[in-house]
Amino acid sequence: MPEETPSQTIAHLLETLQAALREGNAAKAAALFGEDGYWRDLIAFTWNIKTLEGRDQICAMLQSQLPQLGPIQLRPDPDETPSQADGVTQGWILLETAVARGKGYLRLRDGKIWTLLTTAAELKGHEEPKGVNRPRGAVHGVHTQRRTWKEEREAEARELGYQQQPYCLIIGGGQGGIALGARLRQLGVPTIIIERNERAGDSWRKRYKSLCLHDPVWYDHLPYIPFPENWPVFAPKDKIGDWLEMCAKVMELNYWGSTVCKSASFDEATQKWTVVVEREGKEVVLQPTQLVLATGMSGKPNVPQFPGAENFRGDQHHSSRHPGPDPYRGKKVVVVGSNNSAHDICAALWENGVDVTMLQRSSTHIVKSDSLMELALGDLYSERAVASGLTTGKADLLFASIPYKVLPSMQKQVFDKIRERDADFYRRLEEAGFLLDFGDDDSGLFMKYLRRGSGYYIDVGASELIAEGKIRLKSGVDVKEIRAHSILLSDGSELPADVIVYATGYGSMNGWTADLISHEVADKVGKCWGLGSATTKDPGPWEGEQRNMWKPTQQPALWFHGGNLHQSRHYSLYLALQLKARMEGIPTPVYGLQEVHHLR
Amino acid sequence: MPEETPSQTIAHLLETLQAALREGNAAKAAALFGEDGYWRDLIAFTWNIKTLEGRDQICAMLQSQLPQLGPIQLRPDPDETPSQADGVTQGWILLETAVARGKGYLRLRDGKIWTLLTTAAELKGHEEPKGVNRPRGAVHGVHTQRRTWKEEREAEARELGYQQQPYCLIIGGGQGGIALGARLRQLGVPTIIIERNERAGDSWRKRYKSLCLHDPVWYDHLPYIPFPENWPVFAPKDKIGDWLEMCAKVMELNYWGSTVCKSASFDEATQKWTVVVEREGKEVVLQPTQLVLATGMSGKPNVPQFPGAENFRGDQHHSSRHPGPDPYRGKKVVVVGSNNSAHDICAALWENGVDVTMLQRSSTHIVKSDSLMELALGDLYSERAVASGLTTGKADLLFASIPYKVLPSMQKQVFDKIRERDADFYRRLEEAGFLLDFGDDDSGLFMKYLRRGSGYYIDVGASELIAEGKIRLKSGVDVKEIRAHSILLSDGSELPADVIVYATGYGSMNGWTADLISHEVADKVGKCWGLGSATTKDPGPWEGEQRNMWKPTQQPALWFHGGNLHQSRHYSLYLALQLKARMEGIPTPVYGLQEVHHLR
Repeated sequence: MPEETPSQTIAHLLETLQAALREGNAAKAAALFGEDGYWRDLIAFTWNIKTLEGRDQICAMLQSQLPQLGPIQLRPDPDETPSQADGVTQGWILLETAVARGKGYLRLRDGKIWTLLTTAAELKGHEEPKGVNRPRGAVHGVHTQRRTWKEEREAEARELGYQQQPYCLIIGGGQGGIALGARLRQLGVPTIIIERNERAGDSWRKRYKSLCLHDPVWYDHLPYIPFPENWPVFAPKDKIGDWLEMCAKVMELNYWGSTVCKSASFDEATQKWTVVVEREGKEVVLQPTQLVLATGMSGKPNVPQFPGAENFRGDQHHSSRHPGPDPYRGKKVVVVGSNNSAHDICAALWENGVDVTMLQRSSTHIVKSDSLMELALGDLYSERAVASGLTTGKADLLFASIPYKVLPSMQKQVFDKIRERDADFYRRLEEAGFLLDFGDDDSGLFMKYLRRGSGYYIDVGASELIAEGKIRLKSGVDVKEIRAHSILLSDGSELPADVIVYATGYGSMNGWTADLISHEVADKVGKCWGLGSATTKDPGPWEGEQRNMWKPTQQPALWFHGGNLHQSRHYSLYLALQLKARMEGIPTPVYGLQEVHHLR
Repeated sequence: MPEETPSQTIAHLLETLQAALREGNAAKAAALFGEDGYWRDLIAFTWNIKTLEGRDQICAMLQSQLPQLGPIQLRPDPDETPSQADGVTQGWILLETAVARGKGYLRLRDGKIWTLLTTAAELKGHEEPKGVNRPRGAVHGVHTQRRTWKEEREAEARELGYQQQPYCLIIGGGQGGIALGARLRQLGVPTIIIERNERAGDSWRKRYKSLCLHDPVWYDHLPYIPFPENWPVFAPKDKIGDWLEMCAKVMELNYWGSTVCKSASFDEATQKWTVVVEREGKEVVLQPTQLVLATGMSGKPNVPQFPGAENFRGDQHHSSRHPGPDPYRGKKVVVVGSNNSAHDICAALWENGVDVTMLQRSSTHIVKSDSLMELALGDLYSERAVASGLTTGKADLLFASIPYKVLPSMQKQVFDKIRERDADFYRRLEEAGFLLDFGDDDSGLFMKYLRRGSGYYIDVGASELIAEGKIRLKSGVDVKEIRAHSILLSDGSELPADVIVYATGYGSMNGWTADLISHEVADKVGKCWGLGSATTKDPGPWEGEQRNMWKPTQQPALWFHGGNLHQSRHYSLYLALQLKARMEGIPTPVYGLQEVHHLR
């Protein structure tokens, strides 16, 4: 008998799994997984973002959810060809529940499921008007008193938030708010985005002037309007700002610039929020059903309280307020910190002839941008990936299909290669006194990003300046005291300083919750971001998904959205569908609502 | 012996043709064409936009051009599969000359070439920075005194036109100017676009409020940034306006709004233009090498000089200045004309309760929008075409591959089907007194557009209002005299009127040449648009291509660009490459510069 093809293997497995699910036999379905099998679900089965690890967790989830999901359909995606290599058979799948359609990805090992990704991509009966279902625009035929597109847009802009309440309010109009707002607009969910800056894109424009994206273009697309093929690999901040402003306009978002949130409270009785905002100086009270904080995944600027800071005679500011090098020619600048912003700021200062010292208090992970692009991102996000037919959407799902538990060991292999390839570079940095790390378990940049959102620099040139001693480096010390014209360090030395830049990062996103809503609600939802990996700045227990991001929280109707452009693009889909389903009254039985283990 | 496959047939023919071309044997190459064979060239061989009709013309062209083109390469496009049906074998080809690379399309009949399209898509050594060659954006490494993207853009915007002269000046910043400007920016040709309106897109925003595109979205994409998949089929004018403004910004065009051209003259000695413009009220003198008029293919508004017009007591204006129905409630409005604008304006007036009469002076071609989409455009530009893998670029080339001589008979078949399908609709219109035509040779809308750019309405509802008598119709009459409160008609009847709208079309584009440069230069270049088809408003002799559009004219360094969104997109490529080649000093031997047979 001829051996089964990968297509047959995938098809048979899916048939068997579908049959078990339709029988409502959770144990039988779970038994199709290997003992170390994973099921990652993006809202299709769990109305949550959830990874089930091992048969017991899978079985428990199915026991809970199957009775509520209706008949499940699972089949190989007919447009894709499964493959087999290194003992793993893998392929794309299509799935349907009673209320949703989606895609997924399956990996088999030794005849059992190793990883299964399931996602919802659209809600039945609420498909987005696009492609063959795009709107007509001009309404042909004869309609007395018809309003033009412009008149309707203007009426909506005038009335929403005043005569009519939005279903959803998004606080924060960066890439996160805009990507989510675009999806909600497409789904017909009345939404207002508020942003303290005047124009969409200002949150990028107002950063230090040398800032460029550290991630390459293929990884950065926003939904609906991909960057054109002439877009730079690493876009400068002002160009990104213009693009975001254009997206907000073209996607017809209700974007309130120059608007700050003063307070927000949830009324248990009406199940609505009361949010007081100040729009261009005037108070407006909004009563949305859903509230999304998209205030930047990095949360509030974290400025350390050093003794004596009030005595400093020069200019001192957090990196988020750093204007760039121009005002500081001829001055001595000390940058406290050694992550991305610190490096960018130091390099721009040095390039403009400023005497600059980096104060490195703890070790930092450094990876050269080219190595990151070629070895870590290139298979999924690159011109090569595009040429091989890997669309951004498919790349996002492949990336999402690796369970977070499995990711570190895969990432370690990548970063081991990078260490080898760039060994000379790392040696020279260490010889200059720079304290290097590759993460607690040597798993490198992505895991640091997912676990703590900090602790690294993607090198685009500053490391060379450090290796050559052009950016002065003071490492392995802490600040003991700030004096009028200097910083006293823990080793007893004293650094003269006219300017101090605190490139000291950001706090947890739920710092905003405490400020805008209450400490009580902030504590109820707990820490945002991180996986519970029990590594530095990401305490255990293991949670398996990023805390509170894009999924239900312990506070009903409160959501967190954010992350880099990739995450803003991809996870905004699942958050938008969760909100749309609630607006439409589609049942959304949440499985495994996260518990709170940490407050901040 | 097995029969040749279509792929083999195409490959053999191309080998033979390439060999003849490389030998410099024009006669041998021409003999590969049928007696009624056509070669349409978009700048690759002729540095012109030119259709050679029959072997003699083809032979003459090759005799002139081959010595200057270097070795020609011709081969089947390896990414495409040739096909055979109805006795025609056809397929995509790739070509190279010494200086350019391009695509083409070949049709064979009875073993001979029936039609050959050749195009240049890029100049060797001057490929556009996109895809794998996209710019890096952030310049990694260390650069003292580096300028940011924003600083460079601001410096360019400040200096171009003042300290530095643009190589190219485009007068008119509608879709034509913007599409061409985007391509020139990509090719590194320093260019300024001037536009009398304040903002890009205003030329759409300022039209009557009910205006929507009459062509569907798939036909309307601009270069580089295609409309997203949620874009309406028929975009409202203000949405198109916003999109154009976004394109101008994102493509980094040097777009001078609120700027009018006062005069332009060409200095034979320096071979440069001197163009006086008024920018936001201040005079600026520009000295571009190339001048492009992109002032709208329709040229200047054509207002008929009716006797007594000065006595009219009400509001009278050309359709280009019509504000829409709002100011005219309760008034009697007469719209003179029966083409697109006349219909749109009448329908919007009727929908708003205005008493409106259409004055039809001569017959009009009407085609229902749905029929046009399904039967005329659908194979090339539709969701169906996209799903079949027909990209916009490929559709444009297929469309361009049909010689204008052959097009009417093909189009007649399409419009015969439409007449049959919509027979009842046409009968009802005629019963209401409407004068219908399908063009002098029944070839329908596209030919009318290409020949005269007027004489039709794409029905999106107004025809029903006419058939039902809701829009009053007075047809087959002319205006004898305008009186204080009425219009006296040639049949002796008198139409009461509070408002007269002249939906009477536009003159030739070179009306602008006369105004901005001189009558002498306008006469030297002659009439723009039209094919010389010897049909109404398109006098012979036959010219085979649209007069003066996107190609060299009798006035060195003067170019005309324009047309609908499709033409602005597609032909801007060839015009941009012609300008780039001249800037780079690449030889551009023009074959068959058009002769002037008509002045306006």
